[in-house]
Amino acid sequence: MSLSSAWGPTRVPTTALLTDHYELTMLRAALQAGTANRHSVFELFGRRLPPGRRYGVVCGVGRALRALRAFHFDEESLRFLLDTDVVDQPTADWLADFRFSGDIWGYPEGEIYFPGSPLLVVDSTFAEGVILETVLLSIYNHDSAIASAASRMTAMAGDRPCIEMGSRRTQELAAVAAARAAYIAGFEATSNLEAGRRYHVPTRGTSAHSFTLLHGDETEAFRAQIAALGTDTTLLVDTYDVTNAVRTGVELTDGKLGAVRLDSGDLALLATQVRALLDSLGATQTKIIVTSDLDEWNIAALSGAPVDGYGVGTALVTGSGHPTCGFVYKLVARADTDDPGAPLVSVAKKSTDKVSVGGRKFALRRFNDRGVAELELIGIGAPPVGDHNDRELLVPLVQGGEILVEEDLAAARERHRRSRAELPLEAWKMSRGEPVIDTAYLDEHGSLDNPYAPKL
Amino acid sequence: MSLSSAWGPTRVPTTALLTDHYELTMLRAALQAGTANRHSVFELFGRRLPPGRRYGVVCGVGRALRALRAFHFDEESLRFLLDTDVVDQPTADWLADFRFSGDIWGYPEGEIYFPGSPLLVVDSTFAEGVILETVLLSIYNHDSAIASAASRMTAMAGDRPCIEMGSRRTQELAAVAAARAAYIAGFEATSNLEAGRRYHVPTRGTSAHSFTLLHGDETEAFRAQIAALGTDTTLLVDTYDVTNAVRTGVELTDGKLGAVRLDSGDLALLATQVRALLDSLGATQTKIIVTSDLDEWNIAALSGAPVDGYGVGTALVTGSGHPTCGFVYKLVARADTDDPGAPLVSVAKKSTDKVSVGGRKFALRRFNDRGVAELELIGIGAPPVGDHNDRELLVPLVQGGEILVEEDLAAARERHRRSRAELPLEAWKMSRGEPVIDTAYLDEHGSLDNPYAPKL
Repeated sequence: MSLSSAWGPTRVPTTALLTDHYELTMLRAALQAGTANRHSVFELFGRRLPPGRRYGVVCGVGRALRALRAFHFDEESLRFLLDTDVVDQPTADWLADFRFSGDIWGYPEGEIYFPGSPLLVVDSTFAEGVILETVLLSIYNHDSAIASAASRMTAMAGDRPCIEMGSRRTQELAAVAAARAAYIAGFEATSNLEAGRRYHVPTRGTSAHSFTLLHGDETEAFRAQIAALGTDTTLLVDTYDVTNAVRTGVELTDGKLGAVRLDSGDLALLATQVRALLDSLGATQTKIIVTSDLDEWNIAALSGAPVDGYGVGTALVTGSGHPTCGFVYKLVARADTDDPGAPLVSVAKKSTDKVSVGGRKFALRRFNDRGVAELELIGIGAPPVGDHNDRELLVPLVQGGEILVEEDLAAARERHRRSRAELPLEAWKMSRGEPVIDTAYLDEHGSLDNPYAPKL
Repeated sequence: MSLSSAWGPTRVPTTALLTDHYELTMLRAALQAGTANRHSVFELFGRRLPPGRRYGVVCGVGRALRALRAFHFDEESLRFLLDTDVVDQPTADWLADFRFSGDIWGYPEGEIYFPGSPLLVVDSTFAEGVILETVLLSIYNHDSAIASAASRMTAMAGDRPCIEMGSRRTQELAAVAAARAAYIAGFEATSNLEAGRRYHVPTRGTSAHSFTLLHGDETEAFRAQIAALGTDTTLLVDTYDVTNAVRTGVELTDGKLGAVRLDSGDLALLATQVRALLDSLGATQTKIIVTSDLDEWNIAALSGAPVDGYGVGTALVTGSGHPTCGFVYKLVARADTDDPGAPLVSVAKKSTDKVSVGGRKFALRRFNDRGVAELELIGIGAPPVGDHNDRELLVPLVQGGEILVEEDLAAARERHRRSRAELPLEAWKMSRGEPVIDTAYLDEHGSLDNPYAPKL
């Protein structure tokens, strides 16, 4: 998939105004003060997981890199910024020439993350780094929230496929990003056609009650659907009476009906009854797809029921109670002068709460000798050398402004599957708990207190 | 604001694939069965408010009408749909010619709604109405969720301004829609620049900790900000020590500092201390803006503190616990044949839960003689005639495919302000409760049971 086709008919010519006002006024002040070109390192990270969650899933990397590529200030944007006095003329001139020319490292897409994991490290001038804050956070906070919820759902579904059907319950373009994130986290397909076109996520559909109600009776409706879509279609059987509808669907297809969909009622009970009915009618190959306010707990609760697939909507696109990750983007180091060779000094907010750890980070995941993850090791300076079984988590994404990574979703999806499989088994628990592995901090002098550890 | 500039540099050439797969396969089956052209009425409504909420706010009307205008299947979309066998050639041919040619009525933007309120009534053929389901629901479910939360926040803030700052915590284009929705519900401004450019929402900014940390010390940072942005700027004073920072800001501006921003700590206590300090330094006109995980309850709790404005982020863009409204889009009536003059027959799903009320609705808000809203009156057939003080809630939005309504945000914002002011005082309560007025149903024969009333 080329980048140009990735934007497709909903191409966004510039992403540069998906930005908070204050980034450009800080830029304006720093340009005037002569501090804008100080070598700076920004870090994108989360202080904690949502309460009770065991792990998080990094998502949005590919979308963020595309947004970076489209991040330039065109004439209309600059005119708006000048007319509203957000920027002055020297700042507008600087923005007109802006193309990001720095380096970015990050956790690859689909990877697992924990509290404090440095998901992105942006190494550039202050000016170049500060104006990316909002667009990077928007993409990471949304996409990772969806992928983190989706991963719990696919974990609970096991071998049974999950289909993303939540477009109608979230903003229309967030829906496209949500379908992408769900696919990375193991969903098999989406109902969202734009996600199919833009990202090649497989699309699936069943039928709505309106289609049945349009016709004189269920037989007429099912006959019309089967005539157009074949016997392998999925019939929605709960408009009037489920038993009658299942019988009708089986009769019209000579027992070769692809699937039935149950969208209301007690799904475990209904699925058991419908399975028995289908089998008694000889439709032993007909599958049962359930939908209706499913989340990871309901999916787990249905594991004993004869269900062949889950359609998940609202809970998926709203992050199952946690629609945002709470990632922040902080300056962690900067030079004292604008000499490009000046040494970096660690910086961090000091007062009261919301502290962060200054300094440019490395990040490793440490595994035991059975290959099970046991520690997220984050530090400042060079990573420790030794015979530990560690994986470096930060990979180069952008170098000198050039985007290095362009992968299709299958790669991120496979990375997620493997990375989740490395976690301790407690990661699969749906009950509330702590992150399944600890985060530890190191500096040149040894271990540091974990500033994000819960206060006991 | 013209429609063309409304799409601006993030123009979406087509919204037609912001659609669920099944809508096009239902269309395909209905075209083949000869039922696609039956005169049909679809209704968009919510069965209930989020638990505990007293009222909801209709939002997304203007965006939905623009999405309708951009809803056409271009060559690339059709190629995708044919290549993936979502549609066959006759369906693709039908889609290639598609322009919505029906009528749409709806609650105007900014109006209050209650359980069962028919927010949109789409009168067209089945084919034309069915394919709009997802894009209409996506826009209404998102924008109304944000506006409903925002309205509670501005109600609690009273005369103090609320500024929307949540872009970083939601998907990057959902952020633009959220800023628009917040403005309609009474927010004064947004940090989101694209919302400024696209919708003319006023934009505001303060400063980030990174700007302070970039500089050698706070004095240097504040001096740079004041030099570029003037003394009327807002200084962020909690990077190191709030007291020192406030003193520095006042000294550098000779007491003429515009505002200080507090972004952490105990905001009520801090605001009181900072107000006393500012006053003791003679900076009696300097305002105090607070931010940091504010929601409607925190805003209410700060009503006694000397605060001059609230910056609201995460809670706003995530709908303060309810990121989606749960609106559905249901076929409520259709003809038995494709004769355009054939009479409409009410239809509704019958089995188990998720019932709806068939039939094409009218909707009135009834007021007592003091002008206070007392009933949402919904019915089938002609509205009752009498000397009641009623307002018709459904206004024509689209007629014969032509979009009739194009209003700027100020009109919707003013409508919201007035409509909220008509509600009983209980609407202002932050405690959980029932909708502040009841919904009642009428048909030609008199009153109906309310199918959405909570089961006692």
